[in-house]
Amino acid sequence: MKIGVFGTGVVGQVIAEKLDSLGHDVVMGTRDVAQSLAREVKEGAPRPSLKDYLAAHPKMKLATFAEAAAHGEVIVNATNGFGALEVLKLAGEKNLGSKVMLDISNPLDFSKGFPPSLSVCNTDSLGEQLQRAFPQLKVVKGLNTLTCFLMVDPRQLPGEHHLFLCGNDAAAKAEVRALLASFGWADAEMIDLGDITNARGTEQLLPLWVRLYGTFQDAMFNFRIVRKAG
Amino acid sequence: MKIGVFGTGVVGQVIAEKLDSLGHDVVMGTRDVAQSLAREVKEGAPRPSLKDYLAAHPKMKLATFAEAAAHGEVIVNATNGFGALEVLKLAGEKNLGSKVMLDISNPLDFSKGFPPSLSVCNTDSLGEQLQRAFPQLKVVKGLNTLTCFLMVDPRQLPGEHHLFLCGNDAAAKAEVRALLASFGWADAEMIDLGDITNARGTEQLLPLWVRLYGTFQDAMFNFRIVRKAG
Repeated sequence: MKIGVFGTGVVGQVIAEKLDSLGHDVVMGTRDVAQSLAREVKEGAPRPSLKDYLAAHPKMKLATFAEAAAHGEVIVNATNGFGALEVLKLAGEKNLGSKVMLDISNPLDFSKGFPPSLSVCNTDSLGEQLQRAFPQLKVVKGLNTLTCFLMVDPRQLPGEHHLFLCGNDAAAKAEVRALLASFGWADAEMIDLGDITNARGTEQLLPLWVRLYGTFQDAMFNFRIVRKAG
Repeated sequence: MKIGVFGTGVVGQVIAEKLDSLGHDVVMGTRDVAQSLAREVKEGAPRPSLKDYLAAHPKMKLATFAEAAAHGEVIVNATNGFGALEVLKLAGEKNLGSKVMLDISNPLDFSKGFPPSLSVCNTDSLGEQLQRAFPQLKVVKGLNTLTCFLMVDPRQLPGEHHLFLCGNDAAAKAEVRALLASFGWADAEMIDLGDITNARGTEQLLPLWVRLYGTFQDAMFNFRIVRKAG
């Protein structure tokens, strides 16, 4: 499938290479291609530079947000949430159309350091903002409550654990479920909360997530919902 | 131990009767004793009237917030969070002193229906508000992320599941841990997040909790943090 991935940070890279490894035709979107390719990383950095990353994945292409959006039959928004609305504007309504967009972004505001606050919460959410700004786009909020290394390889953790999906379009959610199933998620592990307003709940899980990360000093954890047997 | 429990709703009742069953000397606090005792419940209601409840637990007493605060060596705040600050003012700084207070309350605002919004969140929390208003009081936020029926009987769920504690005083947290251990919580199930600002994270879990409750139509669930083995 043709997929456009917005964002060239670690989340975008990890998602894009997983999709590439599964045989999808992936175009990563960024604001300024030349600038992104010129970005260096420090010696010993945990991730390669984007240029080296792309060299290691020759089937993937890097393009503008608009080109990645035009390419994708499905879009994955893996940008940092703070700028996500502007990214979608750059992608363009014409290119986004009525496509399915998996929105992984969280409205984390690191401007005052760690732990971050949320730039939108409580009676609104980033998922809803994006959906309101692009009413034809089929926004499915999901994967935003765990580290990207588990998003694409959930079986690294023992036993069942969960992710939360929400969105207004049932067919779009089914398409996202199928994609995530190909990442290794069992059907029962993907909890459909309902419409896009439920993004308030999942985005507001982040403040606890970052505090648990601070406590464990390790991002390799996820939430499991434990229910009574039977 | 002498314990004052603020709140006569279902959370207060379930906590108070658990403490009573464990041999503690419990005084429940309310705003207006006569009014609380006069409150009737509909026939077939899931819970008895407060009067009948107290008749069934003859060792427990009902008193004002101030009297319950004066009685308790430890306080449990099981009021609805919306009015919690006022409840503590009624209890009185003199009676609260430098006691340990387990704060279970959540700042849920149901004024616009279900799901509720939060009356404080993001860069502040109810736990911090209470701690700021009563700086000598040793506020420990905890138990606020699950139904009261599991708070007092966690082994109803299969396997390990978690609760989150936070507060500024290490000895106060140790005292709360000991109390909760007597409810059936294993030490490893009680995750200490750090100081009281971490209440932001646990209170903001409630928006997801209420949505999961809406999805399952069942409150008998809790969060388990799954980590990599080893």
